[in-house]
This record gives sequence, structure tokens and C-alpha cells, in this order.
Amino acid sequence: MLVVAYDGTNYSGWQRQDNAVSVQSVIEEALSEICKFKVEIEGASRTDAGVHAYGNVAIFDTEMRMSANAFAYALNTKLPDDIKIQYSCEVPGDWHPRKTESIKTYVYRILNRAMPMPTDRLYSYFCYHDIDVEKMRKAAGYFIGTHDFKSFCSSKAQVKSTVRTVYSIDIIENGDMIEIYIRGNGFLYNMVRIISGTLLAVGKNKIEPVEVKNIIESKNREMAGDTLPANGLTLFEIEYPELEI
Amino acid sequence: MLVVAYDGTNYSGWQRQDNAVSVQSVIEEALSEICKFKVEIEGASRTDAGVHAYGNVAIFDTEMRMSANAFAYALNTKLPDDIKIQYSCEVPGDWHPRKTESIKTYVYRILNRAMPMPTDRLYSYFCYHDIDVEKMRKAAGYFIGTHDFKSFCSSKAQVKSTVRTVYSIDIIENGDMIEIYIRGNGFLYNMVRIISGTLLAVGKNKIEPVEVKNIIESKNREMAGDTLPANGLTLFEIEYPELEI
Repeated sequence: MLVVAYDGTNYSGWQRQDNAVSVQSVIEEALSEICKFKVEIEGASRTDAGVHAYGNVAIFDTEMRMSANAFAYALNTKLPDDIKIQYSCEVPGDWHPRKTESIKTYVYRILNRAMPMPTDRLYSYFCYHDIDVEKMRKAAGYFIGTHDFKSFCSSKAQVKSTVRTVYSIDIIENGDMIEIYIRGNGFLYNMVRIISGTLLAVGKNKIEPVEVKNIIESKNREMAGDTLPANGLTLFEIEYPELEI
Repeated sequence: MLVVAYDGTNYSGWQRQDNAVSVQSVIEEALSEICKFKVEIEGASRTDAGVHAYGNVAIFDTEMRMSANAFAYALNTKLPDDIKIQYSCEVPGDWHPRKTESIKTYVYRILNRAMPMPTDRLYSYFCYHDIDVEKMRKAAGYFIGTHDFKSFCSSKAQVKSTVRTVYSIDIIENGDMIEIYIRGNGFLYNMVRIISGTLLAVGKNKIEPVEVKNIIESKNREMAGDTLPANGLTLFEIEYPELEI
């Protein structure tokens, strides 16, 4: 298992695809070079173009005689500066990062100040409006629990069920950065970016906190807020409660 | 007067030069477009290639009829995302940002963890060694005050005097980021990066804190630590105690 951090700015997303450089393809290339054999990896979260990660998870099979924890160091010598393995270890052969129960944490960052700050531009969404963070916190409460999140899902998504469980939403103010931490058992396509956009609309007094309840119940994407840009989003962590390593 | 923030990654430094894109030249181009006349600016700090700024200061003359504070907004519509004006105001016609007494604050960031973190790579220097921050704080004390900083100055520097005053050095741990804030009345070429390199050598137990006293007294660049890379350095703020605006 690999725990992977990346700056998504220059990638077409996690998933391998033709005619575009993905995080997956860059790692596979480095890994294949080390193993002297074509290696494919399976990722836990297929993050979108421009989305960052501190801890995406991936697995691969190899018969190579190298200790599992050494793969992180070996790979980092070959990977570019914007993709770095944080940790590597062995997992059971039948373990799959998407077919195992997990808790995912994403953070969406909104930079709230009068003028844009160049050194924050790649990792946050800039907003100069006054934002009422207390109102956002009130609205966040309505998302907690198991709900049908159809209103917070790109219409492009093709999934059997749009029911998901959100365990917590914590909104932290770090100087002029508003950080929305969302923890759940899984997220629909664009779900974190649409929830963040809806919370921002609440913070800007365009939606009252209590209306969020109706937006969820409407199961109508049109009712929710905007899909905020990818650059503000970071996959913070994936926990596997049942995995003993 | 303009207060200017930039991500120095893609620039040859502040200073205009032939065959290279500088922060100064990009701002001058935007300003000349607004004023419909070739405008030159004078910067307070001629930061090196790759160095960032939250608050460099620059001045220019114009006869254009636009309120001084509107220049920040007008310029930001023309400037790229990695250079943004934070503030603009009028100053006396004879005021010069380098010929006026000022207090400059720089911050040097060292990311201290087992593995590099892609989203921090542009704004910090990565170091995986154990670092003793308390020792660094002890060593920092020796720099405070008025000293001949010849040992902490690139031999390329051509200046009349290498005497400067350091008002304070604060070393703050922010998660796994070690931030060295240095405040002084002026800095020699590479001075902050060499002081930071010397403090890091202390943190890595290669130099004892008390030896810093001898390094300063030696007036010998060879005695001090390495010049740390430009990307870890940010011009945090310039204060002009006597300027009333």
C-alpha cells in the first residue's frame, strides 16, 4: 500500500487516461522502472483534475524482493517534486482500497481577504466578500448523518445510490483562510465542492442555514450552491478502521 | 506607493533585467498600460530569483487622475495570478522606499518531516534530519543587536558597510514547519538565507549555539552555515516608522 501526496495543479487528475498526464500514470511509470516490469496501481480516490492530496491510497502487486517500506524511498527518488509517497507497507493480497470500508477526510480552503495572495492561489479559492463563518457552521450541521445527497452531486455522476454518510464538518479559521474539513464514508462526484459552495453561499447570506435542510430533501442539484473550483480541494486523509498494518 | 505580494517561483527576481522576466518589469508593463505612458517603479527590496514576498514596497510617479487606492484594483485586473497588489496609497513626492529608515521582516521556512510534501515544496526548504529548535533559539540570540555581518554576506556583495542591526529573531513551529522570522533595519546580500543556514546547522547539532558568537566575530563567510535555497524565503513585511499615510 502507498500513501500518496500530490499537488494536483499540473495533472489531469488521479485516473490514467489517454493524451493527458495523470498522477496514476506518473507513479506507475516510476514503479515499473523500479520493478523492471509493467506495474499497475489501484487508487482509493480518483481525484479530479487540479485537486490535491496529502494522503490518497494506492495498491499494487509485485514479486520484487524489496521491503515494503523501502518502496516509498525508492519511488521518491524517481517521482517529480509534485508527487511524493508518504509511506508504504504491505497489505493482505485480497485487500482493495475502494472495496473496503473507509473514512475519507477532505478539506476545502477559502481565502477570505480584500486582495488575492499569490502564494495561496494554488491551494485555495479566493473570496473577498464578507463571510459569516458562524452561519456556515450552523448550516453544516444539516449535512451530518446519512442522507440522499442527490442535490450535491454532479449530474454527470453515474452511481446506483446517492446515499452517503457525513460524519462531521469542521470549519476552522486559520488567519484569513477558512478551512472546511468534511469527513464521511464516501463522496459523490463533486460532492465536497458543491457542499462547500453551498456553505459559502450561506456565509455570504445568500442562503439561510435552515434552507439547507430543504435543499437536501429536494434531491435537486439546481437548489444547491455552485461547484467551487478544484484547486481549493485537498484529499486530507483516508482511514481504514478494519485494516491492521 | 504599492504594497506588492508575489510568488517568486517563475521570476528572475524583483529587479528589471535583460532577457529575463522580473517582478518589476511585469508590474511596470501593467502600470504603463493603465497610465497609457511608460512608467518605471522603484522597489524597496530587490529580492533574488525565487524569493517570495507578501509585502514588498514600490513607488512611481504619475499625473494620471485616478485615486491612489484605486491603482491596486486596476493593476490587479492586469497582473498575473502570481503577482498581486495588496494596497496602494499616495506618499510625499520626495519619499523613496530605499532611502527611508525601515524595518524589514523576512521569514525563512524549513519543512521538517520524514517525506517531502508536494504542496509545500514551492514555499519551504525540506529537511528530514532531526532538528533541535530550542538550540536554534539559543543561537538566534547572538544575532540580535548591531553587528558587522560580514560572515553572513555573499562575497558577491559590494557594499560600503556590512554593519546591520537585527531587532529580533523568532522561531515558530507550525505543525512540521519551522518558521524563522528575522526583523532588522536592512539585510546584506543573502544574509537571511545564510543566517537561516547557520541556525539550521545548529539545529542539526553541527554547530553549538555559543559558536555563533565566534562566527560573527570572525567576519569570515567560510565560518558560517550554507546559503539555504531561495524558495524558502519570503519578504514578510516592510515598516516605515516615519511615514504617515
